[in-house]
This record gives sequence, C-alpha cells and structure tokens, in this order.
Amino acid sequence: MLTYELDKTRSEPMYLQIYRHIRADIELGELHAGDRLPSKRSLASHLGVSVITVENAYAQLLAEGYIRSYPKKGYFVESIPAIQPTVRKATELPTSVQEKQTEENSLFPFTVWARLMRDTLASDQTRLLTRPPSEGVWELREAIAGHLKHFRNMNVSPAQIIIGAGTEYLYLLIGILLGRNTVIAVEEPGYRKIADIYESMGMQCRWIPMEQDGISLNDLMQSDANVVHISPSHHFPTGCVTSIGRRYALLGWAAQQENRYLIEDDYDSEFRLSGKPIPPLFSVDVTDRVIYMNTFTNSLTPTIRISYMILPPPLLTRFREQLGYFSCTVSTFEQYTLARFIGEGYFEKHIRRVRKRCLDKRNALLRNAKQDILFQNAEFLGTDTGMYCVVKFCGSMSDTELAEALHVRGIRTIALRTCYHVCPEQDMQLFLLYY
Amino acid sequence: MLTYELDKTRSEPMYLQIYRHIRADIELGELHAGDRLPSKRSLASHLGVSVITVENAYAQLLAEGYIRSYPKKGYFVESIPAIQPTVRKATELPTSVQEKQTEENSLFPFTVWARLMRDTLASDQTRLLTRPPSEGVWELREAIAGHLKHFRNMNVSPAQIIIGAGTEYLYLLIGILLGRNTVIAVEEPGYRKIADIYESMGMQCRWIPMEQDGISLNDLMQSDANVVHISPSHHFPTGCVTSIGRRYALLGWAAQQENRYLIEDDYDSEFRLSGKPIPPLFSVDVTDRVIYMNTFTNSLTPTIRISYMILPPPLLTRFREQLGYFSCTVSTFEQYTLARFIGEGYFEKHIRRVRKRCLDKRNALLRNAKQDILFQNAEFLGTDTGMYCVVKFCGSMSDTELAEALHVRGIRTIALRTCYHVCPEQDMQLFLLYY
Repeated sequence: MLTYELDKTRSEPMYLQIYRHIRADIELGELHAGDRLPSKRSLASHLGVSVITVENAYAQLLAEGYIRSYPKKGYFVESIPAIQPTVRKATELPTSVQEKQTEENSLFPFTVWARLMRDTLASDQTRLLTRPPSEGVWELREAIAGHLKHFRNMNVSPAQIIIGAGTEYLYLLIGILLGRNTVIAVEEPGYRKIADIYESMGMQCRWIPMEQDGISLNDLMQSDANVVHISPSHHFPTGCVTSIGRRYALLGWAAQQENRYLIEDDYDSEFRLSGKPIPPLFSVDVTDRVIYMNTFTNSLTPTIRISYMILPPPLLTRFREQLGYFSCTVSTFEQYTLARFIGEGYFEKHIRRVRKRCLDKRNALLRNAKQDILFQNAEFLGTDTGMYCVVKFCGSMSDTELAEALHVRGIRTIALRTCYHVCPEQDMQLFLLYY
Repeated sequence: MLTYELDKTRSEPMYLQIYRHIRADIELGELHAGDRLPSKRSLASHLGVSVITVENAYAQLLAEGYIRSYPKKGYFVESIPAIQPTVRKATELPTSVQEKQTEENSLFPFTVWARLMRDTLASDQTRLLTRPPSEGVWELREAIAGHLKHFRNMNVSPAQIIIGAGTEYLYLLIGILLGRNTVIAVEEPGYRKIADIYESMGMQCRWIPMEQDGISLNDLMQSDANVVHISPSHHFPTGCVTSIGRRYALLGWAAQQENRYLIEDDYDSEFRLSGKPIPPLFSVDVTDRVIYMNTFTNSLTPTIRISYMILPPPLLTRFREQLGYFSCTVSTFEQYTLARFIGEGYFEKHIRRVRKRCLDKRNALLRNAKQDILFQNAEFLGTDTGMYCVVKFCGSMSDTELAEALHVRGIRTIALRTCYHVCPEQDMQLFLLYY
C-alpha cells in the first residue's frame, strides 16, 4: 500500500500532495508501468483522508496521463521514462505521456508561423544575434502596444512592456520587484498556481472571497494585503467579470496607500464571446498602481512561451534599477517572429477563429444540454467569456458522481471545489465545462 | 548636477547604484541624447563618493552604450528610446544602443542553425505543439546527456536534466527549491549577478574569499552557509581552477550536514584551451549534494536563451513536488532545434572553432604583450581556460590609468576590483583581458 507523509498544515491541498507523491514515484520508477493503484476507498482510509481527496488526486493523474483507469478493474500506472543512469533511445519514447496536447492547438496557424519564422531567419542576421535589452525586443513590444491600442484601446508605450518566457516567470519578477514583504491578496476560488508561486518566493498570501461583481472589497480592506492579484475581465474559475463600480473601488483602495498595487491578469480577455469588452483597469488608472499582464501562451500554443507585463512608469524605473541586469528570457528569433505575426494581422485573425470555435462549441454544449437529463434545471454561468462556462447543477448527485457523468459525456471539466484554497467539504455541484 | 539618493547600506555597490540611476534617467528621457555628464571628479564630490566609484559607473554605461566619451570633451548621453506614450516608428530604431553584439556571435553557425530550425519546423507538427513536461523536451535532455557523457564523461540521465530560459531563471528555481532560509556562500571576488539574484529572493549571501586552489574552506566552515555556489572548472574573474583536493574537501563539507549542497556553475568549461579537463564535482559526488549548471547562451549566442541544470535524485523529487507545475520556459521549436544541433555534432564543432579562435587571440595577445612596455614584468594568470586571462600589472600606474591604457589598445577588460562585493579601496593592478 502506498504510504506518504502528508502535511495538513501546508497551504497545498491534500489531493495535490498525494498526486505529487504518486507522480514522483511513477517518474522515479518506484511505481512501474502496469502497477495497479490501491482503490480510492482503501488508499483514503490508509492515508486518513476523504475518498474525495484521493478521487481528486487520481483524477489529476488521469488527466495528465500518469495512470489509466479500466472500468471495474481500477487504476493502473502508465509507462513513462524512469530515472536511471542509462540513456534511453529516442525510439523507446513515443511522445512522453507527460506531454498532452491541448485542444486549442488544432487552431494554431502553424504553417503561417513556420513561414514567418523562416522569413525571420532569412532576415538581418546581425539583428537576430544582437542581445536585446532586458525588457525584450523593441519591435515586438511595439507590435504588442499596437495590438493593445487597436484591440483593447489601451495607450501603452512599448518602453513600458516587458517580455518574459511565460506568465509564471513574470510572477517571479513581480515578486522580486514588489519585495517579499508584500502581502498579496488572491482570489478565492482562483487559479491556484498564482498563490503557490508567490508563496514559493516567501510572500504571504491572503485569500479574498469572490462576489457577484468581483473580489470582495470589504474582505480586502479588512485584510493586511497591500497588493491584489485579480483577473477582472474574466475570473477563473467562476467566469465572473468585475463590474466597473468594483474596478473603481479597487483603484480607490490602491490609491489610499503608497505601496498598494493591483496586478491585472488579463489572461484570456481576447476570448470574450459576446458583449462589449470592459476597459482594463490599466486604462482607467491614473495613479500608476496597475500592473497589466497577458500571455500568448494561452492564446497561441502552450509550446511558445511568450508573455508580457506592462509597468506604470514608477515601477518601470524600479524594474530597471533592480532587475535591469536580467536578460530577456525569450529568444530573439521568436520575438521577431511574433512581432511579424502580430504586425501582419495573423494574431487577431487567429483570435477570431478561436472565438468562433469557442462560440460554436458553447452553442453545441448548450443545445445538447437541453436534451440531457443531467443538465435538467442546471444553471449556466459566464457563458459569454473565455473558453469555458460554469454550470451549477441541482439535484442529489455528488460532485464525484457529476464528475464521472460529465467525463462519460466527453466534456473536459474541473470541479469548482478543486479551485479553492480551503477546499469546501460539502458538495458544491459547480463545474467548469471547457468548450 | 545629477543628484541621486545612494544607499550605502545596500549590498549593491555604489557604482552600480549610480550606474542604474543614470541609466534610468537616460531611458526615461530625463537625460537627453547629447547631454553632457558631469566630470567624474565633480560628480564624485557632489555625491560624496570616490572618483573610482564614478569611474566604474561611467565605464559600465560606456560598455553598454548608454554614453559615449570624447577625449578632452567628456561623457555624452547616447540617443535611446525614451518612455512617452508615443509609439515610435521602427525606422527610428537602428538596433537600439542598449543592444550590443558580443564577440562570440561572429562564430555562431547561424546558417546551420537556421537550416536546423527550418528542418524542425518541417517536422512532426503535433510534436512541436505538444506541451513538454516542466523539465523540458526529452530529446533535448537526451542530447545534452549524450554531450556531457562524450565531452565531460558525466553519467547523467536525461530525466535529471531541467531546461530553463537562461541561467538567471535557473537561479530563481534553485532559490525556490532550496528555500529562502538557505544561507548561500558565493565567491569573493566573483560574478556579482549571482548574489544579486539570490538576495533579490530574500536569501542571505556570504562572501567567501578565493584562494589559490579554490574557495577558502576555512572561511566556508566558519560561515553559517549551508549552500555554496562555485565555478570550480573556471572561476570568474580570477580564472582559478579548483584543485581536486579542494573539490573533495568541498564534497566532504557538504556531506557533513543534511541540508548542505554545492551548486557547480560550469558556465564556460567547454572553452578550456589546454591541459586535461578536471572532472566536474557532479561526477565524483556520490552523496547527491551537487547541482550542476551550464548554459548554451554563453557558448552559442546570448540571443538563444537555453540553460540547464542537473539535479541529484532527491532534489529532482523535490523539484517535481514543489515546482512540477511550472511550465518549461523554452519554446519547443528551439528545444528540438538545439537537440538536432547537438545530436548532429554541430555544437562540438562550434566549440572547437570558438576554442581555436580564443587560442589564436590569446597567443596574439601574449605575443603583442611581449613588445608592449605596458606589460613589462606583468604576470599572466589563467591563460589556459576560457575566453579571457587575468593580468597582474606592476609599476606605479593606478587602475584607472591602466584601464585607459588597455582601452586605448582596444582590449576588452574588466578591472578585478569591480568584481568584489566589498570593493577594495587601493589599486589592485589586476585586470581581466578578453580575447
């Protein structure tokens, strides 16, 4: 029987701890391909956790392809490269099971990208081999500024834009920039990784509950947080859009004290499906308290790691003083290619295609739901933004049962419970449904 | 007159603080192109610092192209993009003066790289659009393992190799992995950035003096450090190579306590010019206490941001538990291209060419030195490793005078003094000479 030390005091939820222990065992070859995992029930009682916790851990391992489930048989370990000092042949390796392709990729205009990359490679060689400033290649920052002007009506100087290899890396830079004495408010429920990363840097996090029109201002004010990290244009996971009123209230909160900042994570604002986009906090901020972030990894393909943040002038100065010696983490080849991709209009074209696809899938989902008993009296929330919606089920089914029922229907889902820092014990009957 | 608040208490040396203030002023357009900077003497007395401090700040700005010096006239600001919400035309931007091309680039086999990139783009698209594990693309890690086996006789499993977008990013990951309670010993003198980055994450640094055959073990033992970051195969800036004896002593030190680790920064081991390479600490370590790091940014071109670290199995497990949710920061396109580049032997071919070039330049340097009065009785150190050597001058010239004399001769140099955390006040007459 698998025996792991679980730390109930850690902010990391139990199911994730179990998931990581098992993942490590598999990757280090301590669990072998074909090994049968204990039943959820028995492992739960063995580890002294709830069955739902093990359920969630197994679900995670399933989703990432570490294990496979056979009806009535149970869960079995998949084969993946183990760590031994023997170099394995590439032939042994069908794309590692850790590598899962994401749905959106199918829409990524690969041939266009490949052509632009070839054009870039054929262009001025000296330029490509010239080290850019730590903020990134000017042409790309210019293209992004242009895109934001046209697409989000944001007035940004390319000089304020900082390119980084993925949002997680930018979180690290922000952590360094704001200093580890920062107390940072994050959304509850929310995108767990964000708090994990800030905490991994020694910053303190506060989990502020979400309300109908955004993060709870009262709870924020009662907290000792001086920075708040939010996704006002489309909250994960609830899909809630922060109201204009709440936005100004947040800006007001930030203006009250010297060292207060708002981090505006605009991660999938491009994919709003209907309705007029609400201007980003960054655009209505006149107090230089908003850090705007967005990423191409989400909108293009996860295999291209390019994100960016926009700093208000005072923080930009601080960035150059404290972090100016960091080298930009994205290769010039890809920065110039992306600059072309945006500049020649392919990015917005791509966005329109993804949107169209999401719209069709959403409509199909809603259509099918109508004839599906499972969705009887179910309530659909946040159906006009992003790549998923939230469904509030009613009736007697447990979250576990609902998860299985949705899985059977081939719908990619996340139980809202799993997005909480403090995982609610009772069933919520709330699920994210991906288009 | 430029007036800046300088913080003598900060670990950051004064000259860097001055450098960053002026840089920020230039970049934010508060200092305009063509503006004349105050003379070193007057700024020094104005800011209450030594002339050498200002000298070093100006030297840094000169090196990075922010300012230009005209003999007998003084120092003048170069033109660079300033931050105003006006989007400038690309035409206004010949490669920004911040962007300086490094010597090695001329040897980078660009056309080969471009071809391999094209081959990669023409290869299995699904694979390119498939998200790799957080450690990186398996084929690249395999190629690196093969290279290290052949080139450094290291037995490493690809599963232990973690790819990251540049060494600085890997420092951040190591910082998170070891935890901010880590007290980390760095070399004095040494590569300043390393301590800067660790400190920016809230870790405490201890500066341990260098001795003839490596970092001082006595000082290390007397310190409260539990991790030491060293470059045993070629210390920057002294070029010192850590002796075998000292290496074992360091491993012994690490083995004495649970949480002790050695970070082996092998940054330019490929460029040893003569003599038998000493096996890396990682290879002789049987206690799983060595983290090995190396980079391609140094050896190929600074515009390709690919570095890697190799973790001992226990740390690898911890990495997967704590950081497994981080996405790999290098795009798959470049990872697969580099895998081909190494696998098809171009990397080692490139290394041989760079080495040859360094060797020729070194010999030319030594030849010229023979007929140059400046180098009379000068002592050359560490001439058989890396891309530079160290020269110990003797005679009455001050470091400032020596710097100018070397500059006139078109030799890229760094005054050894500037590599100290605590900058020695007296002249050292020690200089790094780049080939």
